[in-house]
Amino acid sequence: MSDRIEIRLSGSGGQGMVLGAIILAEAAAIYDGKNATQSQSYGPEARGGSSKSDVVISEGFIEYPKATRVDVLLAMTQESADKYCPDLRPGGLLIADEDMVAEMPEVEGRAVRLPIVRLATETVGKRVVANIVALGALVKLTGVVSEEAVRKAVLARVPRGTEQLNAKALEVGFRAAEAAGG
Amino acid sequence: MSDRIEIRLSGSGGQGMVLGAIILAEAAAIYDGKNATQSQSYGPEARGGSSKSDVVISEGFIEYPKATRVDVLLAMTQESADKYCPDLRPGGLLIADEDMVAEMPEVEGRAVRLPIVRLATETVGKRVVANIVALGALVKLTGVVSEEAVRKAVLARVPRGTEQLNAKALEVGFRAAEAAGG
Repeated sequence: MSDRIEIRLSGSGGQGMVLGAIILAEAAAIYDGKNATQSQSYGPEARGGSSKSDVVISEGFIEYPKATRVDVLLAMTQESADKYCPDLRPGGLLIADEDMVAEMPEVEGRAVRLPIVRLATETVGKRVVANIVALGALVKLTGVVSEEAVRKAVLARVPRGTEQLNAKALEVGFRAAEAAGG
Repeated sequence: MSDRIEIRLSGSGGQGMVLGAIILAEAAAIYDGKNATQSQSYGPEARGGSSKSDVVISEGFIEYPKATRVDVLLAMTQESADKYCPDLRPGGLLIADEDMVAEMPEVEGRAVRLPIVRLATETVGKRVVANIVALGALVKLTGVVSEEAVRKAVLARVPRGTEQLNAKALEVGFRAAEAAGG
């Protein structure tokens, strides 16, 4: 039995999906003692402004670092939701931005809509931390890493001087997921 | 014939190898119009403070994103030089920090020693930009991406307010490589 969990963070360039994925992988590997890989492929869609990054977390050795059968998909734009939902495994979880993904794709699993960008803008006060709000929600909804681990990983990675803002963004994400039944 | 080029950036945690790899991949894909992947695996060595990140650049589709036969290895510590030199292909290029890698491993290829951390500290004035100095040297020595592309990719990725410092670090890396015969 594999304990491999595959997570894909997708959105538009500049939304911090790559940084979010690095933080998640480091939370798992450095602070939770698991193995993790983080990867992204850049092709023509990157030049069009799309961004996606994959994280694989496992107790054991990870041979293939790309996500092939996604357990958890974060979609921050309509385009990314449409493009990557077919890769979500049956029974998987889609987390979509409520405002950005107006038409939810059908998924054979659970789908949660959260106003991630709106929470970043209105509650935290900075749209740029939407990736960290999303990360908080994802961790709360899935338990793929511990809350303590993701908190430490966020603080280790974000630019100096933005720690408090990002810590708040993470908490806002935790709470939004709780309110959604996470 | 494959045009696949595999580059590994290795050092200790906190030296910015992951960010360096992302910048290199984005330079190739977003600004030079190629395909690229960037990946890292985190295992026990990450908890010990080691860090490595792989970039694969190709004109065509990249099926397997991990480096398997490294063309270019950057080693910022003795430990990373010792650990990853065996993965360097015959005829490949090792770029090592002159002060940090006191004992150069034997390589069946070209080896260049540069005082990367010292240049960052003394010439640029910030040790933390050693990864960008290294990136400049690597690009100048290899031509894997254009100088213009890496310049744009650096500016797009570094924290706001540090653009000038990082642009200078990149130029210092270009010049160091030139002086080494790059």
